[in-house]
Amino acid sequence: MAHIDLGVDERKSPGINGLMQFRPETAKPLGALADVLLRGPNSLTPGERELIAAYVSGLNDCEFCRDSHSAFAAAQLEQGLPLVEQVRADRNTAPISAKLRALLAIAAAVREGGRTVTGELVEAAKAEGATDVEVHDTVLIAAAFCMFNRYVDGLGTLPADPEDYVHAAHHIIANGYQGLG
Amino acid sequence: MAHIDLGVDERKSPGINGLMQFRPETAKPLGALADVLLRGPNSLTPGERELIAAYVSGLNDCEFCRDSHSAFAAAQLEQGLPLVEQVRADRNTAPISAKLRALLAIAAAVREGGRTVTGELVEAAKAEGATDVEVHDTVLIAAAFCMFNRYVDGLGTLPADPEDYVHAAHHIIANGYQGLG
Repeated sequence: MAHIDLGVDERKSPGINGLMQFRPETAKPLGALADVLLRGPNSLTPGERELIAAYVSGLNDCEFCRDSHSAFAAAQLEQGLPLVEQVRADRNTAPISAKLRALLAIAAAVREGGRTVTGELVEAAKAEGATDVEVHDTVLIAAAFCMFNRYVDGLGTLPADPEDYVHAAHHIIANGYQGLG
Repeated sequence: MAHIDLGVDERKSPGINGLMQFRPETAKPLGALADVLLRGPNSLTPGERELIAAYVSGLNDCEFCRDSHSAFAAAQLEQGLPLVEQVRADRNTAPISAKLRALLAIAAAVREGGRTVTGELVEAAKAEGATDVEVHDTVLIAAAFCMFNRYVDGLGTLPADPEDYVHAAHHIIANGYQGLG
């Protein structure tokens, strides 16, 4: 149960959903940020960006964000959930591009703390073909999930049933993150 | 110098400012989020909310966010910068209300990680008169600055000259965070 009274049935509005219903004023920019980062025009695919979000959320041990964004990544990656789980278990051996592997290393450093991101990590990603915008967006996706993870867990909301994330994936792919709740 | 080419003079656009010019698509929801959290209608004053932002940014050792939001808090608190510095040095002995002290304890826990926020911390804040919205907004302000701090430092941007933060405070108070850059 959440630490505050959200005024919703938390089983029907788990994780961030009840929070967004409770506080529509903050839900609006949060939804817009998720949309531009994860679904907006980008040379990284939505599946790759959701994979970064799921990876960071796993490192932060946020069950709701980890499992929901793993499902959203799986629904948009040809190799599906097995690839997501391989990346979460060990990004160094998972069958992904060298560029994505280097971007995940940056994301992991961002999670530790901003100052952990070194010029060497960024140069390694650029050497594998990452653009400045891809580096920027990887840093901001990882940073944003350090926010979303703390928001969801800091208010003690409930996770969802595993199959709900698969249904949510279809909704997100069709409608985006704005108006979530 | 930033880890990527922002295409701006970083001395004139330090910290988050150059990032927001580089990527206006993400600047828009980030500015809107900062505005609703720090300047929107709220029973916590803008000065109190900026104090939470400065406090978390100090714990995260993000020089740009710490010094800028310390200046923004100081400009909106009767006791000015000395109070901000007392809170940053030791929230337990600073001359603030028991409610704000309890909310800062929640913010410090959020910074550590979402799961660090206990029901006891939230109940302690409520016992001092904190509302559900105040607890919610404290958690989200702290979480958001865990994002902003990582964004600014993760991309290696420069801090500003100390007096620039005082000038920026007047601009923020007059115009808000949207359109920053």
